Amino acid sequence: MSQAHRQIKLGLLFNSPGSDRPESAAAADGRPAHSLLGYYADIARRLEQARFDFLMVADTVSTESAHQQAPRPEPVTLFSALAGITRHIGLVPTVSTTFTEPFNLARQLQSLDQLSDGRAAWNVVTSSNGERNFGDAPIPDHGERYRRAAEHVEVVRKLWDSWEDDAIVNDHGRHIAVRADKVHRIDHRGRYYAVEGPLNVARSRQGHPVLFQAGSSEDGKAFAAPFAEGIYTAQQTLAGAQAFYADLKGRVRAHGRDPEHIKILPGLCTVIADTEESARRLDDEQWNDIPPHVLRALEQQLGGIDLSDLDPDQPVPAERLPALFAVQGRQSRYGIFRDFALSERWSVRRLLRLQASSAGHGRIVGTPEQIADHLQEWFLNGAADGYILMPSQGPGGIEIFAGEVVPILQRRGLFRRDYEADTLRGNLGLPVPGSRFGQPPAHAARAG
Amino acid sequence: MSQAHRQIKLGLLFNSPGSDRPESAAAADGRPAHSLLGYYADIARRLEQARFDFLMVADTVSTESAHQQAPRPEPVTLFSALAGITRHIGLVPTVSTTFTEPFNLARQLQSLDQLSDGRAAWNVVTSSNGERNFGDAPIPDHGERYRRAAEHVEVVRKLWDSWEDDAIVNDHGRHIAVRADKVHRIDHRGRYYAVEGPLNVARSRQGHPVLFQAGSSEDGKAFAAPFAEGIYTAQQTLAGAQAFYADLKGRVRAHGRDPEHIKILPGLCTVIADTEESARRLDDEQWNDIPPHVLRALEQQLGGIDLSDLDPDQPVPAERLPALFAVQGRQSRYGIFRDFALSERWSVRRLLRLQASSAGHGRIVGTPEQIADHLQEWFLNGAADGYILMPSQGPGGIEIFAGEVVPILQRRGLFRRDYEADTLRGNLGLPVPGSRFGQPPAHAARAG
Repeated sequence: MSQAHRQIKLGLLFNSPGSDRPESAAAADGRPAHSLLGYYADIARRLEQARFDFLMVADTVSTESAHQQAPRPEPVTLFSALAGITRHIGLVPTVSTTFTEPFNLARQLQSLDQLSDGRAAWNVVTSSNGERNFGDAPIPDHGERYRRAAEHVEVVRKLWDSWEDDAIVNDHGRHIAVRADKVHRIDHRGRYYAVEGPLNVARSRQGHPVLFQAGSSEDGKAFAAPFAEGIYTAQQTLAGAQAFYADLKGRVRAHGRDPEHIKILPGLCTVIADTEESARRLDDEQWNDIPPHVLRALEQQLGGIDLSDLDPDQPVPAERLPALFAVQGRQSRYGIFRDFALSERWSVRRLLRLQASSAGHGRIVGTPEQIADHLQEWFLNGAADGYILMPSQGPGGIEIFAGEVVPILQRRGLFRRDYEADTLRGNLGLPVPGSRFGQPPAHAARAG
Repeated sequence: MSQAHRQIKLGLLFNSPGSDRPESAAAADGRPAHSLLGYYADIARRLEQARFDFLMVADTVSTESAHQQAPRPEPVTLFSALAGITRHIGLVPTVSTTFTEPFNLARQLQSLDQLSDGRAAWNVVTSSNGERNFGDAPIPDHGERYRRAAEHVEVVRKLWDSWEDDAIVNDHGRHIAVRADKVHRIDHRGRYYAVEGPLNVARSRQGHPVLFQAGSSEDGKAFAAPFAEGIYTAQQTLAGAQAFYADLKGRVRAHGRDPEHIKILPGLCTVIADTEESARRLDDEQWNDIPPHVLRALEQQLGGIDLSDLDPDQPVPAERLPALFAVQGRQSRYGIFRDFALSERWSVRRLLRLQASSAGHGRIVGTPEQIADHLQEWFLNGAADGYILMPSQGPGGIEIFAGEVVPILQRRGLFRRDYEADTLRGNLGLPVPGSRFGQPPAHAARAG
């Protein structure tokens, strides 16, 4: 893809921080006018109309937050339901490697890719909690989880490769639907998994689901570089985002991959209004009254400390904050909070607002033009290939973005006016991977 | 429900024996006019129009059949996709207890129940193969699988109960969406599973998914009696079906349950034409040329024996057939084949046709009136509460059933003209279960 035509990629995170209320409302009534699926479907249709690349949903298998907000449908089922309702937009469920079997997951995601006709992805996470719902074993530590995850992803990719593209033939007369020589056992025997294969789902129009990854720690970057095609990352500053972008693209190149084949997509919370002043007022109003569960979330974000005895208008004492390597989950995100707490000496109240409004992701408050300027600046200055948007005004914020920011980006030639393709890979500018078992192997894998 | 208004319940099994060809055709072309989801969606819409109770799909996590027929989407993803496209019809995925974590499965199925607004079920199976895709351990034997399955189902049910019906409140002012006192840890510690809970998905309009069960062996019946609400069973004769029906209803009563709250639904293959003669000719033509993979399937069905050296027009020698208890999977189905082979001295060719056409399920060939007569006879004579249909003419057979058999049943007052309810439980006449953690506990569980 030539630099001249390089365009911003846009995704939406369904469960954005600070935007759970409308969704809770949809789920709250015994029989809402608007069904739960209807809530998601309306947003999906609107963003498809606005030519968004994809929808994404974060996930946890922990129930610690069950008392804090309305529970949401499991990501694979949610996006399967949306597959039947949408036609172009990509579907990016988050699923943990720590609590799933590679065969089951490879199968479900490849089925989603088939049912959506080539629009599925997998946002790979390793989970930092939830283990008490899966037996007695303690959760593996950060490094061990990533080692296991690397093998998990490898098994899933082998299973996706176990069917060659031309394995299914349509020869009714001879009653043969599948060419046995085009379907391969994988015979994987590794440190953590033993899986024979083949998968029992064939390849899709885009080969297999796009691979997203959402960890930005050192372990996370090393894990992502060999395979990830989309990166969801939390970045607060242009300089920080540029450093992350250069670092990860360099790592990808070092693995012999084309750096264009990984899209770096910082999360971005938005508060948008007609004037900057009213956007700021809207933002202030929204966070005047921070829900009580946010304190608990902030304590978790800071490595599990207790903040309840502190003066909310004073900085967090340095001795309360654990070292980065000692934090077992969301390590890179903790780094952001720790920097604000230590270097900028933010008060507990200000950190609470950061948690409530964006959970450490970038945040921009202003007019549609200002939002567009921000997206353009990071995009043109080596900080982002696109964004995963987290509008903090719920469906209203999504509508303002789709209706007012997108047209500005389109006028500036920074965002598509129509879908380039009808697969997620096609729209993201990613190659269709060939099967490692196919002929010719390496060549086909590189061809767009 | 009074006997006077007792009506036949009807489901469709998507992947019927002998009907895989149209589906293969849909999947075969790189980009078919008809997408894979479109194939399923057309059938779903047609049967919703005909007021069917539910759609079901069988499943295996084994890839042994991958070379035999086109692979199909994984059941939970398939039915989630159909949830968005349909409004009334029930969705019954088959999922194995042997290869899933109770927390993940409870969560996905409850999500499907939420996304479909109360139309989900779970057809519980224990799987007799597939273990080589899930590590090194051999598959547990028949009895052990059922013991594990019983605990698995119990954990899933506890997780579904972990949210009381009124756990979600909509109180924006106080930022409270969930009442903590209405969400419960399950703290399950059993022989096979340790699961803390609560689930992170709330209850649906029908409480939780309907529980189907598909094993008819002694182990299977003992397993089903305490919890199953729908039974998928293979029955060849009226007398055999009556005995099974009476046995299982009696077991259900012995568990203190209302026998009306379990629906016994034999599988039934149909070949339908305007005259009996043309239906018979159609059937003969269809099985003149039995696909080669059916021999392998029959060998598996008979407990893993080798039939390739036998004269296809001679009976299977008795010494080739293993004892019933020695067969580790599909034990009750093996019993049917074994009876035909030993008592009726069926030839290999005839057994092959039984496998190819119905895999041991009941089979009826005739006019729409004759099909309706058969359904009526079993229904009125204590052999069935309804049927899981497996039309062996593909989508054409489904259309004939919906367009010609259903109206006859409606005229006879045996089948609904409109849905009674908009949940699967409502249409099947099953009670909405209360949460075991709620108040009042036992009473609510029995209330319709």
